[in-house]
Amino acid sequence: MKAEIIAVGTEILIGDINNTHAQYLSRELASLGISVLWHTTVGDNQNRLKEAIITGIKRSDLIIFTGGLGPTKDDLTKEIVAKELSKKLVKDMRAKNNIESMLKKAKREITNNNYKQALVIEGSKVFYNENGTAPGMAINENGKIIILLPGPPLELIPMFEKDVKSYIMNLTDYIILSHNIHLYGIGESKVDEVLADILEGSNPTVGIYAKTGEVRVRITSNAKNKQIAEELMKKPMDIVIERLSKFIYGIDVENMQTAVVRAAIQNGKKLSVAESCTGGLIASNIVSVAGSSKCFDCGVVSYSNEIKEKVLKVDNSILKKYGAVSPEVAEQMAIGVRKISGADIGISTTGIAGPGGGDKEKPVGLVYVGISTEYETKTYKLLLAQNKQTKRQTIRDLTALFAMNEARKKLLKGRFVKLSL
Amino acid sequence: MKAEIIAVGTEILIGDINNTHAQYLSRELASLGISVLWHTTVGDNQNRLKEAIITGIKRSDLIIFTGGLGPTKDDLTKEIVAKELSKKLVKDMRAKNNIESMLKKAKREITNNNYKQALVIEGSKVFYNENGTAPGMAINENGKIIILLPGPPLELIPMFEKDVKSYIMNLTDYIILSHNIHLYGIGESKVDEVLADILEGSNPTVGIYAKTGEVRVRITSNAKNKQIAEELMKKPMDIVIERLSKFIYGIDVENMQTAVVRAAIQNGKKLSVAESCTGGLIASNIVSVAGSSKCFDCGVVSYSNEIKEKVLKVDNSILKKYGAVSPEVAEQMAIGVRKISGADIGISTTGIAGPGGGDKEKPVGLVYVGISTEYETKTYKLLLAQNKQTKRQTIRDLTALFAMNEARKKLLKGRFVKLSL
Repeated sequence: MKAEIIAVGTEILIGDINNTHAQYLSRELASLGISVLWHTTVGDNQNRLKEAIITGIKRSDLIIFTGGLGPTKDDLTKEIVAKELSKKLVKDMRAKNNIESMLKKAKREITNNNYKQALVIEGSKVFYNENGTAPGMAINENGKIIILLPGPPLELIPMFEKDVKSYIMNLTDYIILSHNIHLYGIGESKVDEVLADILEGSNPTVGIYAKTGEVRVRITSNAKNKQIAEELMKKPMDIVIERLSKFIYGIDVENMQTAVVRAAIQNGKKLSVAESCTGGLIASNIVSVAGSSKCFDCGVVSYSNEIKEKVLKVDNSILKKYGAVSPEVAEQMAIGVRKISGADIGISTTGIAGPGGGDKEKPVGLVYVGISTEYETKTYKLLLAQNKQTKRQTIRDLTALFAMNEARKKLLKGRFVKLSL
Repeated sequence: MKAEIIAVGTEILIGDINNTHAQYLSRELASLGISVLWHTTVGDNQNRLKEAIITGIKRSDLIIFTGGLGPTKDDLTKEIVAKELSKKLVKDMRAKNNIESMLKKAKREITNNNYKQALVIEGSKVFYNENGTAPGMAINENGKIIILLPGPPLELIPMFEKDVKSYIMNLTDYIILSHNIHLYGIGESKVDEVLADILEGSNPTVGIYAKTGEVRVRITSNAKNKQIAEELMKKPMDIVIERLSKFIYGIDVENMQTAVVRAAIQNGKKLSVAESCTGGLIASNIVSVAGSSKCFDCGVVSYSNEIKEKVLKVDNSILKKYGAVSPEVAEQMAIGVRKISGADIGISTTGIAGPGGGDKEKPVGLVYVGISTEYETKTYKLLLAQNKQTKRQTIRDLTALFAMNEARKKLLKGRFVKLSL
């Protein structure tokens, strides 16, 4: 089944918000064996919305609209779709009652334009909204399925998980499975060359995807059942693992922080973090993983010498002699936070994230990472600014990625993390 | 000028990565007075890429392609665009040399497929890549401008800022200006109703945009020069400020953390943060703002009772009596971190972000926030899980937003933040 996702909203086209639904829905549809071939974003404009609908129906079997179901005058999705399908809008009493109770619950005044949201396309399957006032709906006609979903993520995601996913699952009769092999420390084109001989297949497919600081190899197959799909994937999986094992940080783990948290929990070890330039980013990444409290309970953000001394017990003399951005201070920060917390591993970062603060000797992008255990404390020097344009956030993200990967290696003695473990 | 952004990459269509370039480029083009009317994403597929190019040229004056310039076999953008424009690909020696030096610098092996990236479309303006091996290029023919940019953000953004922006600026002869009024604590449809009478204009335009936990009113005008554009915006600006002042947290500030950092620096005050459920998110948000070291140097992530006691000096008896998720503990955490850090304001969070850990008495989404100064310490009770589907990250984001807004109110005694201040 060929699918297309059409986001409706001028706020996306002027860059006020990011179209995160395209990613969320694409991932969900892929997991259901549905190929998304197009993403389109169009503004709250009658003519262009009409063009998007006509094009979508022509080239796709499943068209999912996100946004434009709000109460305001420029929310047009429902109206234009109904018009293109020559259907009426009819009032849905359950939607109306839901709107009234939602707004009461939120102690929000009920405005007249809210009632516009109680209208649905005649003959559609209505998805009631537990988190907002706009109902979703699905129309299935002449082999084309058109689904309308509200824009706010807090409304769309729960609605998709509760009702829309099962609605779509009943439209397909085979499954698709994927495995993701996550790599750190190797470039995309090198991976492409190493795996050139297995990139041509169609079932399973092998794809290479790069993002800031890492590369992912995704192997996907479709079949009547899980067992056959897994059998199809086994050979390429073994090849990738054999050829790239030393770069693999995890298989089927969501991201680096998930790999680190799993590794720590599997080994019954606790982590602690002392952050200067990353300023809480590593702690926040770790805590973003559900269940991380089992392996993490202490982070210190020490953004000045005073706090490094006072909280992390870094020697004043060391700070004076070498400066805050130095291997000596990274080492003492890592040891300090490990001791305060009683954790098995102390992770530290100190560096110059920019845009200001750099000089010839210590340029923007210079970062020291420390990893401390009761047996040894190691520090690492990183130069993360490829040039003057490199962003503060990028330097912080790359630092967090490196530090978490070193902690993972410590925990697993180089082995990688498998979801199944 | 009508613009369209076409992202090329199967990894976007299967949801592996988010198309962040669409937002970045849309915002940049808006600031140059160019209306982006379409975002399209298409996979690394010959036929669909061809369809996207033909459609783009038909309906848009400026078409920007992102991605598909990589070294691998399935990177097709340059090849297909050249074919559609009936142009040859020619080797660019400076691009070739750049590739060789880039890869040497990165200590990466030079693979044959890298040389594919030294080819450019004949007659195009080439944008050399300081951060990668793929050159960008622009073709200007028959009133249509087609720009090709590399996919990795670390390459695209610096290239756009250094060369592409000025290239595009030379294509237009007027400017567009915007002001953004950021609101917290009021819903989108209420704002729509309050401002209904000023939403119809065309120059300036007034738009309302909602995202998790906040609403933004954007006023935009275009004119021959800055002064005229500002004059056009003055009346609606005054109206919005007059009608919604008590919900405004900032004007022309990037986000809540920027508002808080500005407020603190303007008032010569220092912040400190003790985080349990947000686990470093508030610290990381603050540190993401360049210059935040002037007003922030201490954060503690205390994810267990032990660390709350040991580092933040929360009374063991209080923890035993009321539990970690309680106003009493939030209060002591805020006081504790303020004292440790010597900051003027201590911010604390303790709550249940889920998915586990909730019960009848203390459900997932129950959060206490503490704000402490030398004069008083206040705590706030939040219930942030609208239902079982509410995500851990959402609860953490809403908590951070609330806590930062309370800190802002403390700093400004309710006044809001202006970029110009």
